[in-house]
Amino acid sequence: MKRSDKTRGTILDEAIYIASKTGFEALTIGKLASAVGMSKSGLFAHFNSKEQLQVDVLKAVAKKFADKVITPSLKAARGEPRIRAIAKNWLAWTNAKFMPGGCLFLTATVEFDDKPGPVRDFLVSNQKLWIHFIAQAAALAVEEGQFRKELDTEQFTYEFHSIYQSYHYASRLLNDPQAESRVWNMLDKLLENARA
Amino acid sequence: MKRSDKTRGTILDEAIYIASKTGFEALTIGKLASAVGMSKSGLFAHFNSKEQLQVDVLKAVAKKFADKVITPSLKAARGEPRIRAIAKNWLAWTNAKFMPGGCLFLTATVEFDDKPGPVRDFLVSNQKLWIHFIAQAAALAVEEGQFRKELDTEQFTYEFHSIYQSYHYASRLLNDPQAESRVWNMLDKLLENARA
Repeated sequence: MKRSDKTRGTILDEAIYIASKTGFEALTIGKLASAVGMSKSGLFAHFNSKEQLQVDVLKAVAKKFADKVITPSLKAARGEPRIRAIAKNWLAWTNAKFMPGGCLFLTATVEFDDKPGPVRDFLVSNQKLWIHFIAQAAALAVEEGQFRKELDTEQFTYEFHSIYQSYHYASRLLNDPQAESRVWNMLDKLLENARA
Repeated sequence: MKRSDKTRGTILDEAIYIASKTGFEALTIGKLASAVGMSKSGLFAHFNSKEQLQVDVLKAVAKKFADKVITPSLKAARGEPRIRAIAKNWLAWTNAKFMPGGCLFLTATVEFDDKPGPVRDFLVSNQKLWIHFIAQAAALAVEEGQFRKELDTEQFTYEFHSIYQSYHYASRLLNDPQAESRVWNMLDKLLENARA
């Protein structure tokens, strides 16, 4: 790793931390510069606008997501084991130490869903890949004969995705001690419904 | 209505609009003052801090939510009709013209779930009332003999709530043309599962 890459990685980690705590709107180059002890002009060499910084932060988060959720899930066997692994790794993601304020994809969704531009464009294309990944895992479970042939895998994905969002809300906002068991109850029903 | 009340209502409507577009963190008294054409000191007479403004905005949103979602839902008959009415009114809420950036409760959840203080306190107590309202509607469906006696109404509520969050994500971020039909599919299954 080149020294300049390392610096960039460290800056992005700090930016992820700040965005998680305050949101993307409040992540200014000035605030980030003082957090990493650099000059604003030094930071402009890395990110020439706040918007570029926001895109780069999301790209860095997407990279971490691939490492911590997608890749390990692929180690589980096709079909239900993989779907359960996705759920487990995704849930752990919400409590990642480098994002103390919760999942940055949810933060970005709320902030950018109504703001056309490159940040929204990256977020949408990234989330579509993720949705496709889940749908693909469901399609493989159909192929393996574990899920029924006529299963609507997009509907399955919609419901699978909803479990995650409710968990984030119940665990982080309501501090519901049963938030996690509710996830597994809901997932059990979803799988039962999908089976061949 | 006293003149001062009317002014306050108008200011809060503008604040709701801004918070919906930019989030609560970016809703400063200065920005609001220039949006409504008042002096900052004039606004301080209404809200003596940004935090107070955030709480008052959430209270005003909660009042609108009661008028647009809770009260009309109570006109539907107990049991499934009321639960379907809640879903319908809640979905319409995400597209309310006065909140062009989407549901402010979701925005506030993402921003304040990790920020202890009066804004989070109000949000949590308000959301607990809402969760209780849904659970109560499910309990009435049990009482009416429509849902089975042993139904876990809190689990039902968790799942009902998840439908909404997924809809917000699918319709506003992904522009999924099927977002709404997915809601009704998911609700149909949830109701089927709950029936006596």
